[in-house]
Amino acid sequence: MLHFRRALSTTVSYASKPLISVDLNRSATDQIIPLHNRWHPDIPSVVSVRRNEIFRIECVDWTGGQIQNNDSADDVKNVDLTRIHYLSGPIEVEDTHPGDLLVVDILDVGPLSSSMWGFTGIFDRKNGGGFLSDYYPHARKVIWDFQGIYATSRHIKDVRFAGLTHPGIIGCAPSYDLLHHWNKREKDLINQCSHLHHKDAVLANPPNEKNALLGQLKYQDNKDLWKKIANEGARTIPPREHGGNNDIKNISRGSRVYLPVYVKGAKLSLGDIHFSQGDGEISFCGAIEMSGYIDLHIDVIKNGMSRLSITNPLIQPGPIEPRYSKYLTFQGISVDDENKQHFLDATLAYRQACRAAIRYLTHFGYSEEQIYCLLAAAPIEGRISSIVDVPNACCTLSLPSEIFSFDISPEAAIKFNEKVDRGQVAKTS
Amino acid sequence: MLHFRRALSTTVSYASKPLISVDLNRSATDQIIPLHNRWHPDIPSVVSVRRNEIFRIECVDWTGGQIQNNDSADDVKNVDLTRIHYLSGPIEVEDTHPGDLLVVDILDVGPLSSSMWGFTGIFDRKNGGGFLSDYYPHARKVIWDFQGIYATSRHIKDVRFAGLTHPGIIGCAPSYDLLHHWNKREKDLINQCSHLHHKDAVLANPPNEKNALLGQLKYQDNKDLWKKIANEGARTIPPREHGGNNDIKNISRGSRVYLPVYVKGAKLSLGDIHFSQGDGEISFCGAIEMSGYIDLHIDVIKNGMSRLSITNPLIQPGPIEPRYSKYLTFQGISVDDENKQHFLDATLAYRQACRAAIRYLTHFGYSEEQIYCLLAAAPIEGRISSIVDVPNACCTLSLPSEIFSFDISPEAAIKFNEKVDRGQVAKTS
Amino acid sequence: MLHFRRALSTTVSYASKPLISVDLNRSATDQIIPLHNRWHPDIPSVVSVRRNEIFRIECVDWTGGQIQNNDSADDVKNVDLTRIHYLSGPIEVEDTHPGDLLVVDILDVGPLSSSMWGFTGIFDRKNGGGFLSDYYPHARKVIWDFQGIYATSRHIKDVRFAGLTHPGIIGCAPSYDLLHHWNKREKDLINQCSHLHHKDAVLANPPNEKNALLGQLKYQDNKDLWKKIANEGARTIPPREHGGNNDIKNISRGSRVYLPVYVKGAKLSLGDIHFSQGDGEISFCGAIEMSGYIDLHIDVIKNGMSRLSITNPLIQPGPIEPRYSKYLTFQGISVDDENKQHFLDATLAYRQACRAAIRYLTHFGYSEEQIYCLLAAAPIEGRISSIVDVPNACCTLSLPSEIFSFDISPEAAIKFNEKVDRGQVAKTS
Amino acid sequence: MLHFRRALSTTVSYASKPLISVDLNRSATDQIIPLHNRWHPDIPSVVSVRRNEIFRIECVDWTGGQIQNNDSADDVKNVDLTRIHYLSGPIEVEDTHPGDLLVVDILDVGPLSSSMWGFTGIFDRKNGGGFLSDYYPHARKVIWDFQGIYATSRHIKDVRFAGLTHPGIIGCAPSYDLLHHWNKREKDLINQCSHLHHKDAVLANPPNEKNALLGQLKYQDNKDLWKKIANEGARTIPPREHGGNNDIKNISRGSRVYLPVYVKGAKLSLGDIHFSQGDGEISFCGAIEMSGYIDLHIDVIKNGMSRLSITNPLIQPGPIEPRYSKYLTFQGISVDDENKQHFLDATLAYRQACRAAIRYLTHFGYSEEQIYCLLAAAPIEGRISSIVDVPNACCTLSLPSEIFSFDISPEAAIKFNEKVDRGQVAKTS
Repeated sequence: MLHFRRALSTTVSYASKPLISVDLNRSATDQIIPLHNRWHPDIPSVVSVRRNEIFRIECVDWTGGQIQNNDSADDVKNVDLTRIHYLSGPIEVEDTHPGDLLVVDILDVGPLSSSMWGFTGIFDRKNGGGFLSDYYPHARKVIWDFQGIYATSRHIKDVRFAGLTHPGIIGCAPSYDLLHHWNKREKDLINQCSHLHHKDAVLANPPNEKNALLGQLKYQDNKDLWKKIANEGARTIPPREHGGNNDIKNISRGSRVYLPVYVKGAKLSLGDIHFSQGDGEISFCGAIEMSGYIDLHIDVIKNGMSRLSITNPLIQPGPIEPRYSKYLTFQGISVDDENKQHFLDATLAYRQACRAAIRYLTHFGYSEEQIYCLLAAAPIEGRISSIVDVPNACCTLSLPSEIFSFDISPEAAIKFNEKVDRGQVAKTS
Repeated sequence: MLHFRRALSTTVSYASKPLISVDLNRSATDQIIPLHNRWHPDIPSVVSVRRNEIFRIECVDWTGGQIQNNDSADDVKNVDLTRIHYLSGPIEVEDTHPGDLLVVDILDVGPLSSSMWGFTGIFDRKNGGGFLSDYYPHARKVIWDFQGIYATSRHIKDVRFAGLTHPGIIGCAPSYDLLHHWNKREKDLINQCSHLHHKDAVLANPPNEKNALLGQLKYQDNKDLWKKIANEGARTIPPREHGGNNDIKNISRGSRVYLPVYVKGAKLSLGDIHFSQGDGEISFCGAIEMSGYIDLHIDVIKNGMSRLSITNPLIQPGPIEPRYSKYLTFQGISVDDENKQHFLDATLAYRQACRAAIRYLTHFGYSEEQIYCLLAAAPIEGRISSIVDVPNACCTLSLPSEIFSFDISPEAAIKFNEKVDRGQVAKTS
Repeated sequence: MLHFRRALSTTVSYASKPLISVDLNRSATDQIIPLHNRWHPDIPSVVSVRRNEIFRIECVDWTGGQIQNNDSADDVKNVDLTRIHYLSGPIEVEDTHPGDLLVVDILDVGPLSSSMWGFTGIFDRKNGGGFLSDYYPHARKVIWDFQGIYATSRHIKDVRFAGLTHPGIIGCAPSYDLLHHWNKREKDLINQCSHLHHKDAVLANPPNEKNALLGQLKYQDNKDLWKKIANEGARTIPPREHGGNNDIKNISRGSRVYLPVYVKGAKLSLGDIHFSQGDGEISFCGAIEMSGYIDLHIDVIKNGMSRLSITNPLIQPGPIEPRYSKYLTFQGISVDDENKQHFLDATLAYRQACRAAIRYLTHFGYSEEQIYCLLAAAPIEGRISSIVDVPNACCTLSLPSEIFSFDISPEAAIKFNEKVDRGQVAKTS
Repeated sequence: MLHFRRALSTTVSYASKPLISVDLNRSATDQIIPLHNRWHPDIPSVVSVRRNEIFRIECVDWTGGQIQNNDSADDVKNVDLTRIHYLSGPIEVEDTHPGDLLVVDILDVGPLSSSMWGFTGIFDRKNGGGFLSDYYPHARKVIWDFQGIYATSRHIKDVRFAGLTHPGIIGCAPSYDLLHHWNKREKDLINQCSHLHHKDAVLANPPNEKNALLGQLKYQDNKDLWKKIANEGARTIPPREHGGNNDIKNISRGSRVYLPVYVKGAKLSLGDIHFSQGDGEISFCGAIEMSGYIDLHIDVIKNGMSRLSITNPLIQPGPIEPRYSKYLTFQGISVDDENKQHFLDATLAYRQACRAAIRYLTHFGYSEEQIYCLLAAAPIEGRISSIVDVPNACCTLSLPSEIFSFDISPEAAIKFNEKVDRGQVAKTS
């Protein structure tokens, strides 16, 4: 008799009973299972899991509820960046040690059923800013409604797209050594300013005890320890070699992430869930930010870091990324607006590609700020197309045409504007 | 100043408060908002919606809980088919009339969080049977666990795939005229047996008052009316021109369905939710059957049936169907096992393609019944490849290779079996 | 030092010097390397190849030049079907024996550079007919121009699509035994008429010496042998277990086909190249028929038929099938136009789906015959969606919206026809 | 009677008779229709086309035959970069003026049938170098054989992928003004060195009369004019706002490119055809370089630049880009190997992602240089994933797993290396 191929089930009722729940009626700083907003090896774990367990984690939005579902951008303008990002965890994974690779299956990600909306913001140049702050210095806000798999916005008409939902932040706690590396290099940058591109921009955010949230460790319980960690703990804004705020849109539903482990028990944290995001997340608060859940399955490759020469996250994207077949692709090169030539500067080349897309799409009646938000939030592809043809880097931004309910081709743009010129379509108000 | 492209939001808290809820702790016949299992214009609507409203509908599995999450197929063997399918609705759509087209957006579909599993069954030849009953006459059952977007089974090892989740049944209530057409033609078939392929098979299921469930209309309230409807109401098993039990796997998340309307208010019903299904749903209870929810948005095209010559459902599939790039495709022609030639018989050709796939996959250690269930449940593509080359129809079954955790190519099959022959791999038990 | 992963090259100048060339200035019956149009084990091989060789084969169109690039359908009406299909081969593969599987890589397929056009025909009901002969009994012809990867037609406006180019026919010569099986079962069908669907249709085409073409074997060289083979040789019209006229559109560029071998040396033949075809090839001469080339790589799995239980072709489709993300899907069930119920008849259900698509698309100004040809030629997906819900089979036809230069959604159809009604768009001539 | 939707054909025998042919038996400097290797408004057009014409252009490889199909990298080491890139054109488009947009359909691209091979090179650090010259300073060469749609290499085992074939260079001649802008900004860069990343690298290539090739304008015919143009003409290496050496892999078969026009008649030139390329073309001579043909259809949008605010190329990618569903994605951040923090430097982040991929893949037995070449040539996706999370840019490199004939997952890497450790697989030579 043939052997029946057989597998053991590991499923539990993860969807009904999350391992970490959040309560949106409580403050982000006052959750039953406390959150944290700094990276440090000594922030205590809040839960523990075994290998091959399946469980659900809920997360508040990255600002912890500072942004409201309304039509004013004042909350975005005044957001307090010392408080972010609010992360769920750390999660201890049994029998895990430094040098291991955590194999994290992102089985599902989605919004909380009680909160079917999200936001995209342009941060004020004086409070965080974004990729195009030189052009769009003022705060703006776009609210998105979730309609099943789709997002639509009352602030950007005639656009609808399926979510490529993902956690902006996922990573294990750093070791002391690694944390020291981070703090040193970022402090050096601030001190030297040698690579500064934007004069008004914040170069980096050093540790800052103000509004530090350290999970189960409360200030009143152990003031010395709390202050030590708060003053050493790395801020959550940049991605780093552990992952962290990667903002990689493809760590989406069904994907697998291999994460370096630096401390015993791994201490995995995650948060900053995005309903959708374009490559670059260009307006900084650029994804569709939301509260949500993540379903996880975790396994471990022992000593995987050295056995596979892996120092940074490795990802296998999932099988249900939204599928588009028509794109409009904009080219940018590393020459700035004053015709100054920069050497193989992909950052600048991508900025120019973004600017080309924005200028073009205004011909359909959108404002530049609307498109800036849209490119940050929609599933655009931002590619380094060529990076060897001195002195120009060439980057491209590919926009899926199908997210618009109308034709965005140049031929259609010409027709649309001829109608506007003939007074058949209102473009101004 | 440029006009802001603007849209009004229609989102409500559909995900938290379904318009129709089901309670899996109650019997399917005893839900708070009663279900129904027959098609008839006079089954009263249970809820009413306006155009452009977004709402959630929950559904029990098609058998109404007759099948259990265990390792015995006795429940499948003894399932009572007079009781199926349990449908949610009818939903009245305001300002809708016969001849209109209902524009139904399937915004999302998924399992209930309290019931993260489903089942696939081979029905016993003497109780419903299936597409391959001549080969596999006995009842079998496969239980699937849902792990986020994925299904896995303890009964079929080394297989995992993302759901292409959809309602097996969706359609509006028939008019009296249409109902009469249905009943007449199906009765004629039974009487004439002229197109019978399988001697033991049920040709069609005529109206049957036994176990009829008519929503809000209870037998005790109006016995005459109840009996009239129960004896006229069409069974839910076949798909018909209104849609109904289409079992079209592509009516999935993000799709749009245009449905003919035959009665005032449309009276939309749906149910039979599948986590996944292969083209053909070949084992009859062939999809991954489950309880679940559907999020809907409804609009109407007035007089759309005559204006567009539409008599049957029209579908725009959604953008997040799982994406595969490697398939193994099996050919079948309309010659039966006794080398008898049939004339352009696509049904037979597809049966032969299914049989070819089953025979082939046993070389990896599965039983034929396991593959039969897998082909019914996994997202296989069943195509009518050529239907004009007399006398043979040619159908193909395309199996996405990536749902297996091992290589299913012929080259790999040869290697696998050489290892079995050398005793390096156990294939028998 | 690490081992360099290394591979030996097998490439030769196959693209410059085809192994079998055709000359379109010569008659199909008078090629330098002679063609053949019957299946028989004794038709002599014209060339021989070794395993792992790469070579190019050229083929004339299936009618051998009977159809002209003009605007008259007279040639389609009067086509001589005793002469078809003209095949290139047989190709002998060294060291190959009955029971082996030929592993054929279709490395590339395309038109001949001297003949960048193709044709789609509706055959006259009295001369071959097609899937919808009851509706469209008269001959029609559509000429397609090849513009790089695209086909366009002066006979069907506003449509352009990329080719899914493939050989309609590929297969090895049958053994005597297999040939006998074929001839017997097809003759039995003709004698019994038991499965006849269409009274006027040809049920099957028995061997016919008229216009038989047997490659290197000329009538004058050996009259007895020639007559024997011509009177035994199977016609090329139906697909059979060896493959043959599969008309599977997915045997396209980059695909791999596993073919059963029945005679020593395999004797592979191929032809009937299609620039594109829809599932079903519904108008019989339904693909975009052309002369063309195929680049092949051949390997062998010894005794593969029994080792893998393979009796029919197995296919791995290629990686560059044109990619579409928007479809319009039409449903059909097995009820005929007189409301007569047929039992799980997928052929009828697909016919009804085709009819629904044709009726619908006439609302954009096309004639029914234009759409019939378009559905035959464009890359439509024809699926057996459900085949177990007695008594109805449910088939679907999915049409990629993007092959049209305008929006084919119902919403757009309504707008288009409102304009026609207001006299803003001319629909009649 | 319904109006037949009708279209006029524009197809001519472009595939048999190219508008511009090349002869690989002649030197690149001695073609019948002369080539050119500089950008200048006064290089005379060699052919003229009308709008909506379809025609074929042939091109030599970018080096003009300096690289041979053999196993030595000496030719790559000694390549003469003053001679490149050899371009076909300029093509004059009738009735085209500055400010127009040229609408160029890339109907098809492919290798010449007489030259079914290509090469990828690592340039020597002292002669051009590449993106990873600091790590791989020495010249290397990989030869690829074309097998239909696929490339394979005797120098990199177990890899095969379909071509995403495209012209690396496409663009119209600059105006005098634009040319002046180019020359000024690139000269300024050289003078200031302010953005220099690599001390040994060439910052930019100013005009250089050595080996200048100016099409029909021969030195002996008009020495003064020749010297003027040769000393003003921009080198072809960088992409610029006209397009030029974009090296955008998605300008492939079936794509449409909108190109700015700066001079009367447009003067379109193209060349540098790639069988395939990864995003970034990281090894500089990184694509699979080849001689080949391009089939074009050209139309014009009058005054399109100002009407649509378009200053740089805009692209609609084609429908037959190879389709993959499994990727392995590597993350890189803008921290260099000495742990020095750079500010939002996408170039560095992508370099680190490339390095991570190279280190990882050596675990399957490849050398680092082999992987460097592979990443340059295979269809990898290089994305700017986040560019706002100060101070780190995060770039990703996504490698399609299916181009390998074995499993490249970390789980498989572990198994492979366990076998190597046990001596079951040879990894060293």
